[in-house]
Amino acid sequence: MSSVQESSTSYTSKADFNYLRSRPIKEVRQTIRNGEYVDHTAGLGAGFLQGNIAILPKGFALDFFRFCQRNPQPCPVVGVSDTGNPLLQTLGQDINITTDVPKYNIYRNGQLAEQVTCLKDFWTEDLVTFVLGCSFSFEEAIMSEGISLRHIEQNKTVPMFRTNIPTIPAGPFSGEFVVSMRPMKMTDAIRACEITARFPHAHGKPVHIGNPAILGIEDIFQPDWGDPADVFENEVPVFWPCGVTPQNSIQRAQIPLCITHTPGCMLITDIPSWDSNRSTWPFDQ
Amino acid sequence: MSSVQESSTSYTSKADFNYLRSRPIKEVRQTIRNGEYVDHTAGLGAGFLQGNIAILPKGFALDFFRFCQRNPQPCPVVGVSDTGNPLLQTLGQDINITTDVPKYNIYRNGQLAEQVTCLKDFWTEDLVTFVLGCSFSFEEAIMSEGISLRHIEQNKTVPMFRTNIPTIPAGPFSGEFVVSMRPMKMTDAIRACEITARFPHAHGKPVHIGNPAILGIEDIFQPDWGDPADVFENEVPVFWPCGVTPQNSIQRAQIPLCITHTPGCMLITDIPSWDSNRSTWPFDQ
Repeated sequence: MSSVQESSTSYTSKADFNYLRSRPIKEVRQTIRNGEYVDHTAGLGAGFLQGNIAILPKGFALDFFRFCQRNPQPCPVVGVSDTGNPLLQTLGQDINITTDVPKYNIYRNGQLAEQVTCLKDFWTEDLVTFVLGCSFSFEEAIMSEGISLRHIEQNKTVPMFRTNIPTIPAGPFSGEFVVSMRPMKMTDAIRACEITARFPHAHGKPVHIGNPAILGIEDIFQPDWGDPADVFENEVPVFWPCGVTPQNSIQRAQIPLCITHTPGCMLITDIPSWDSNRSTWPFDQ
Repeated sequence: MSSVQESSTSYTSKADFNYLRSRPIKEVRQTIRNGEYVDHTAGLGAGFLQGNIAILPKGFALDFFRFCQRNPQPCPVVGVSDTGNPLLQTLGQDINITTDVPKYNIYRNGQLAEQVTCLKDFWTEDLVTFVLGCSFSFEEAIMSEGISLRHIEQNKTVPMFRTNIPTIPAGPFSGEFVVSMRPMKMTDAIRACEITARFPHAHGKPVHIGNPAILGIEDIFQPDWGDPADVFENEVPVFWPCGVTPQNSIQRAQIPLCITHTPGCMLITDIPSWDSNRSTWPFDQ
């Protein structure tokens, strides 16, 4: 997987990240749609819900839907397309999954086969798109309450770890929870529990605070994905369920075709991120 | 529909309701499983989540799942079986959908064809069970905070109404929200909003307080289902999304076969009802 990802630098963005982050969501989406921005979306379209993407053939959609329902913390479903329809009508006015993600991973039989910036040549009448909430929404909320997040301070990717927590399987989908780790003081960790519990559709509250060994993590400074993060003397590591969990399960299932976003390059929706408790929209009387 | 329901008095319970309501959940379930109790479950298995049931052929399951995801307030999914498996493994140790509901409605092409107390003769390898949260959980919580509910005081069925609020369709499933109405003082209504918002998997917060006409309800004293309820001078009607919404949509869709619980005769799960915010279970570290 890593070899293909490293070769992906063949894609370069014409649009500048620092310019784009000040622009309204419609312009950001159009820039991505035009293929002019092909990089990570953290900090873009501020205030709007971003999503992890999994596109699967219809024959696997019901089992994957069940898998998400059974494991809502790592796999919080925020939208599901009609079969064969590239539009995500419940997540915005005009969101087209074939163009509106900066970069896509194409997996064949569980192996990353290629990365592309547009799905026009891959879309078929047989495909179903799942959009799953991601941690950007709750990170925004944590920071807005004055709690600093180290990986963002240091402009790194959050460290992610395999754990020993089993998911509840459905059909071919199984595997362990992947978690992300954010170090903070215990008082902040407790506040972060309270804050993130309000975002069940962005992974919700932590699964553990304090002892990596309980999760089967041997070395907190050697993440399986992302960058290592310092944990200072007066801090505890705080672990949240992570959106890599479903990607991992899909790869393990070795299904013939699956398309995801390239990690970090998410779909930006029209849904306000503070409103990610899905029971409150789309009906807005 | 009503003619068949009225003829259903041919089923009578050997077990006494008032005895059963003091018994532990295992005994309640075994009594239902034995066919010795074939009536409503309100007040039975206190403290455990009860669910609306929809059993559909596999070919309709993905669209119905989408319909629920798009309309989470009336259709909060709490469990989905594997195709052809009568066990609901994520909702309890030993829950069998073919025996553990007191009474079932069998719909053929959208028409109620018969009522039965056991599905042994109807179950096939092609069926998928959906369990949707119901209002019993939030009613328990409202009453535990000292707010009285008129239909329970008066031992009646909560009044339910068709509205003009459209659901978001998926495949053959569509239709308007059905709501249930509970009259209360405005101060209690506001507290009830706060309380029920904590139960997104039991329909969550109200959709409206005050004016039935806004929902397209012409006469608050003529419900479409259930019994009329008084609304006193110092009270407002409070409307919640209702589990009849998906039953209504399934009937409209006129699919060849659908099996539901008989209204009021729910499935009792092993999930604590205060824990119906689905993101907190089944992983309990």
